[in-house]
Amino acid sequence: MTTRVLVPWSDLSVPAELTPVVWDGRGTPPEGLDQVEFYVLPYDSGAAPLRLFPQLPSLRAVQTLSAGYEQILPLLPEGVRLASGRGLHDLSVAEHALALMLSAQRFLPRWFAQQRTGDWDRAHTRSLADARVLLVGYGSIGRAIERYLLAGEAEVVPVASTARPGVHGVAELPGLLPTADIVVLVLPDAPRTRGLLGAAELAALPDSALVVNVGRGTAIDTAALTAEVAAGRLRAALDVTDPEPLPADHPLWTLGGAIITPHVAGGSDSFYPRAKRLAERQLRHFAAGEELENLVR
Amino acid sequence: MTTRVLVPWSDLSVPAELTPVVWDGRGTPPEGLDQVEFYVLPYDSGAAPLRLFPQLPSLRAVQTLSAGYEQILPLLPEGVRLASGRGLHDLSVAEHALALMLSAQRFLPRWFAQQRTGDWDRAHTRSLADARVLLVGYGSIGRAIERYLLAGEAEVVPVASTARPGVHGVAELPGLLPTADIVVLVLPDAPRTRGLLGAAELAALPDSALVVNVGRGTAIDTAALTAEVAAGRLRAALDVTDPEPLPADHPLWTLGGAIITPHVAGGSDSFYPRAKRLAERQLRHFAAGEELENLVR
Repeated sequence: MTTRVLVPWSDLSVPAELTPVVWDGRGTPPEGLDQVEFYVLPYDSGAAPLRLFPQLPSLRAVQTLSAGYEQILPLLPEGVRLASGRGLHDLSVAEHALALMLSAQRFLPRWFAQQRTGDWDRAHTRSLADARVLLVGYGSIGRAIERYLLAGEAEVVPVASTARPGVHGVAELPGLLPTADIVVLVLPDAPRTRGLLGAAELAALPDSALVVNVGRGTAIDTAALTAEVAAGRLRAALDVTDPEPLPADHPLWTLGGAIITPHVAGGSDSFYPRAKRLAERQLRHFAAGEELENLVR
Repeated sequence: MTTRVLVPWSDLSVPAELTPVVWDGRGTPPEGLDQVEFYVLPYDSGAAPLRLFPQLPSLRAVQTLSAGYEQILPLLPEGVRLASGRGLHDLSVAEHALALMLSAQRFLPRWFAQQRTGDWDRAHTRSLADARVLLVGYGSIGRAIERYLLAGEAEVVPVASTARPGVHGVAELPGLLPTADIVVLVLPDAPRTRGLLGAAELAALPDSALVVNVGRGTAIDTAALTAEVAAGRLRAALDVTDPEPLPADHPLWTLGGAIITPHVAGGSDSFYPRAKRLAERQLRHFAAGEELENLVR
């Protein structure tokens, strides 16, 4: 009897000793599930993939392609291991963070507006080079953003929850904020991160500083930020907001100093090749009886 | 009698043995010009700074802050050396090239349009990571673009006028174009570069390829590119066009697949600190009787 693995893609390279069963999370699940021992969850397919667990009596390991897994744990059958998709979205988020910073520094909203009327009105712009960038949240996404910033000769000041050599602790923010040209937040939603940039912290930033958020919207006091941007004192470039979606009539949408994208930093083409490579590595580990990468249970 | 140097900034660090005279190119030139031996030309101030040469009988060397210097040579008095501003704009142009690529790959025109109506409509986007980027023009700007692209895990294919180890020659373009996701042109205007991407070359690109130009507009056949973008087959992100300015009624302005900025890649804040550092180094060289950097005559 062969060992079956349930995977979301038909073009995956699977070790010869495993038999793939393909299901992308849409429509009726396939036959032969009772022999499935390894299950790569389809990405971004809602709750249906998780409802399959009771039909997988031979299941030994699950691979999610998301970085988060809190919603999977309560449903996961006892004794089944779980590996996360940590790192798969890093580059996509870093790219988008850079796109937001460059948009603001190089006046892209102005050029795109001029494009609608065919207006060739030039101006000298800000730059990302030489900018002093506080990178608040220094995990794998933060480091991917840092690689981009260093290539562009920006000055990177890493800030993590606790200080370590070369990295500032978040407690040092009051002293760091007045020195920043740009603050980039790459933080999860958690009690310790909520409201991290409130009215007092925003007021500590120098005039014209740029606030970028590609983590979770709750890290910023939206009303306080809106007031600072409306006053023309700060600029903002946000992929995440609080609340989310940002209501269509929220004043932040149309302020001249604000750039808003609808939480699209993580979802780009760079994800799928990396997700497939991780799934293929994990299937090889599984076939060889090796420990999985990114094990979280 | 002290050696005078004519410089455009009052905050420049000048060696003690030199006496600075400050003129930013606007208004009446200052007194004491007959002792000026070294002249740092004000940047982007039109023809007035060049008309000063006849009033500088002691002049021995001129520093321009532009990369090009063809318009200076005919006016430069005999025996006066000239140093160029080569490299000062590299990072600014590289940043803008990256901003154009990210705008197209990460759908920024769509998000900015949605922002006007407060529309939180999400979509999966393209990515810059994994994209195969032909970098046509592999001087100091091209290498600055490459550093950014490598940080973002794009695949860089350098192309220069002649092949050398690790760099393709422009004669290989017919074989390379069909493999490109993105083509970035960083070429000066010259007989050998004009019309480099004509109808045949554009037709050789795969569907949905992105054409980026931060060099000079004449490298692309504008009519052929407009036809390809209008047909929805290619995308374009251009900081330079042919003609320039692009006429307000040109169809390229409003095509969905086109991004146009009005020749603003070189003019950003990253220029001035680098220009000042070069001027300070050159003044030290001059005071010490050393050879200048970037000498072109």
